Amino acid sequence: MSDPQAYIEQHKDKFLDELFELLRIPSISTDSTRKEDIRKAAGFLINQLKSLELSRVELFETPGNPIVFGEYCPYDDKPTVLVYGHYDVQPSDPDELWHTPPFEPTIKDGNIYARGASDDKGQSFTHIKAIESFVKSGQPIPVNVKFLLEGEEEIGSPNLVPFIETHKDMLECDMVLISDTSMFGKDQPSITYGLRGLAYMEVEVVGPNRDLHSGVYGGAVENPLNVLCEIVAKLKDDNGVIQIPGFYDKVVPLTMADREASAALPFDEDSYKESLDIDAVHGEKGYTTLERASSRPSLDVNGIWGGYQGEGAKTVLPSKAGAKISMRLVPDQNPKEIAELFKKHFESLAPDTVKVKVTEHHGGFASVTDLNFYGLKAGAKAFEEIYKTDVLFAREGGSIPVVADFKRVLGVESILMGFGITSDAIHSPNEKFSVQDFYRGIKTSARFFELLPDFSE
Amino acid sequence: MSDPQAYIEQHKDKFLDELFELLRIPSISTDSTRKEDIRKAAGFLINQLKSLELSRVELFETPGNPIVFGEYCPYDDKPTVLVYGHYDVQPSDPDELWHTPPFEPTIKDGNIYARGASDDKGQSFTHIKAIESFVKSGQPIPVNVKFLLEGEEEIGSPNLVPFIETHKDMLECDMVLISDTSMFGKDQPSITYGLRGLAYMEVEVVGPNRDLHSGVYGGAVENPLNVLCEIVAKLKDDNGVIQIPGFYDKVVPLTMADREASAALPFDEDSYKESLDIDAVHGEKGYTTLERASSRPSLDVNGIWGGYQGEGAKTVLPSKAGAKISMRLVPDQNPKEIAELFKKHFESLAPDTVKVKVTEHHGGFASVTDLNFYGLKAGAKAFEEIYKTDVLFAREGGSIPVVADFKRVLGVESILMGFGITSDAIHSPNEKFSVQDFYRGIKTSARFFELLPDFSE
Repeated sequence: MSDPQAYIEQHKDKFLDELFELLRIPSISTDSTRKEDIRKAAGFLINQLKSLELSRVELFETPGNPIVFGEYCPYDDKPTVLVYGHYDVQPSDPDELWHTPPFEPTIKDGNIYARGASDDKGQSFTHIKAIESFVKSGQPIPVNVKFLLEGEEEIGSPNLVPFIETHKDMLECDMVLISDTSMFGKDQPSITYGLRGLAYMEVEVVGPNRDLHSGVYGGAVENPLNVLCEIVAKLKDDNGVIQIPGFYDKVVPLTMADREASAALPFDEDSYKESLDIDAVHGEKGYTTLERASSRPSLDVNGIWGGYQGEGAKTVLPSKAGAKISMRLVPDQNPKEIAELFKKHFESLAPDTVKVKVTEHHGGFASVTDLNFYGLKAGAKAFEEIYKTDVLFAREGGSIPVVADFKRVLGVESILMGFGITSDAIHSPNEKFSVQDFYRGIKTSARFFELLPDFSE
Repeated sequence: MSDPQAYIEQHKDKFLDELFELLRIPSISTDSTRKEDIRKAAGFLINQLKSLELSRVELFETPGNPIVFGEYCPYDDKPTVLVYGHYDVQPSDPDELWHTPPFEPTIKDGNIYARGASDDKGQSFTHIKAIESFVKSGQPIPVNVKFLLEGEEEIGSPNLVPFIETHKDMLECDMVLISDTSMFGKDQPSITYGLRGLAYMEVEVVGPNRDLHSGVYGGAVENPLNVLCEIVAKLKDDNGVIQIPGFYDKVVPLTMADREASAALPFDEDSYKESLDIDAVHGEKGYTTLERASSRPSLDVNGIWGGYQGEGAKTVLPSKAGAKISMRLVPDQNPKEIAELFKKHFESLAPDTVKVKVTEHHGGFASVTDLNFYGLKAGAKAFEEIYKTDVLFAREGGSIPVVADFKRVLGVESILMGFGITSDAIHSPNEKFSVQDFYRGIKTSARFFELLPDFSE
């Protein structure tokens, strides 16, 4: 047996078993009680890389979760691809909405249901299996390859950028390959050439020094819950325009080419609404749904709390209210600057009856990749061969801030070769990943590595 | 020993021990898992009444929590007093803010710290002990007396009004005596002659059919948390005026006499702000703090929730948001009508991008008692003898909807003889009740029963 594609075809069950083993580990990075599971997932990947007979496999400690690194670079005349992925996952809550246990992967209707199935364990695992298909079928790996798998993507990769900066030489490459995005639709492969950035804030509004009886004090003492709502309501106007002064100052306006490319993408707003059970979409006036969700900045309350949330009625005027509020950014917004502008504006909206505290969680820059880059073209060709259809190029609304960091520190473009689809419910209950796309992902990755040397000439 | 006051003085420790026994029972009516504790508290009171040698003591079942009834009515020529109180308590959460366990009463700095210490176990227990002081010191009980102690006050007394209506004859009386309010200040007895009503609502805003990734959908799909904030912000204007159409239609305006009585009350706004750690008060424009907190309607968010409330950052665009919102009412607002107006207005404010659900929890009418009623005068005299100071008459902001129901069904006024103080932190962590006022309450109640026959002539 000497054909990597045949090897893949013949080892589907083994690949799935191995992925399931990884998915069973609840490596939730936002949950500080899951440190052991984080290490377990990292250890699993170290063993995977070791089985590939690479020249170097190493677990790097960081102040946070460890980074898994692997390297096989025998060629002077071939491009070097750095595969980036993450082995940490989002929390699974609300757990009661899962139809199957989030950390017991279950196959149903051709999909793998599990937290991390698509984001990003399932997707990033395809590249490890692609390299395996060369090694185990006795073929040479066609390019220089490095692996960089981190465990803090879902908490904003606080230790990754320092790591990249410190290990710049070790990570030297011609491009980064990332599978952590969605295809444009089922059976419609696409390459994401743009990502949004992120600024994630937490706010607290404090009124009286203790919870009060709403009968005794209601009407005379400002209620922090009402105030929080009033401030949040002022952050956007009725046209969906964010009201933070200076927020749009550095936004690069969409070009006619951008808008035409977006308009050319197949998109059915009725099916979109139907799939979400909503009667109407809503967003910034003057932009299409696709533009709003990918190429324009946004502001969302991600969580809110305060007062009595239990059964029945409690007549309390609470002391405190809080919220998590995040903004998606586009080129050339600077997340630190946006966080500062938000803080200043939020504080300015607070009446003198309360105290507010605004803190910053993680953030990251938006990015857009040059459409003429040869790596993108090789990726598109690989997709077309395996999926037997044309590839679309799209900007996407999510954030992979490290893409901007790879560009800044290593000077390279990233190829976002997503095998998931939008309805995979990543970050939601019942996250899934198509079994077929898991296999096609492995095949596409293997073909990409084979094709790349020719495109680089 | 033949003097009830001497008996009280000599049995202080016993009274305190008995109250502690009652306070140790977590009879939380909003918590459906506490049914057994509810029955335990009712049973304790049945035993207490049985020890008073009344002519009738009975536990009445209702569709909800049982009602404790007792009666001793030997006189044709003396007034009949119906003592009303409640043995259920508010939830204790947030438990982590209590300095001592909420259901392990602890004495500190002359106060009893426990959930229910003031509201209403400690206060209502004074009347049982007052009657005991006659019985056990060999004196005749000076008036006809009935006890009506319920276990659903904190959930809006859903079964009390039907009970009163069904047992109208059994409950026939000349007045109701209630200790479930606050004195105007420490050592400053007061009789509450007005109470606010209540309409308590719960709202839910539903957007997409599942939690979404805020990167993939943010900016294009309406976020129910943002919408909830926007609707709540529209419920009041910047002057604290409630914006629900028709809300003020039936409000009886404050008379000049009302405003003068309120202005005559000793009130120091600086100490008020200081005690709450707030820099400024806030409420309906054109009214004083006392008026806002007692004689004008109000609207407060009592609880709000939605999305991710855990540690760190989760980039979710949540499917649902919810809130509990209540309004305090004044004469002659009708709680059912107000609930309807709220529902209609809230629904009208919802954009077509979401679905809203508005449900009603309990409600109740406001009430104002005639200041010339002889029962009030007897109460004031008793207060003055025990506290050795003048009594103030004040309207209070809380709600005891049953007061309006007693007036409607039994045709009688209620005497609100509060022994607590505003800073007792009822409904809050670290609820307390002064040990001294517990004893003075028992003495005042005993003197009230002794004085009442003379005032009725």
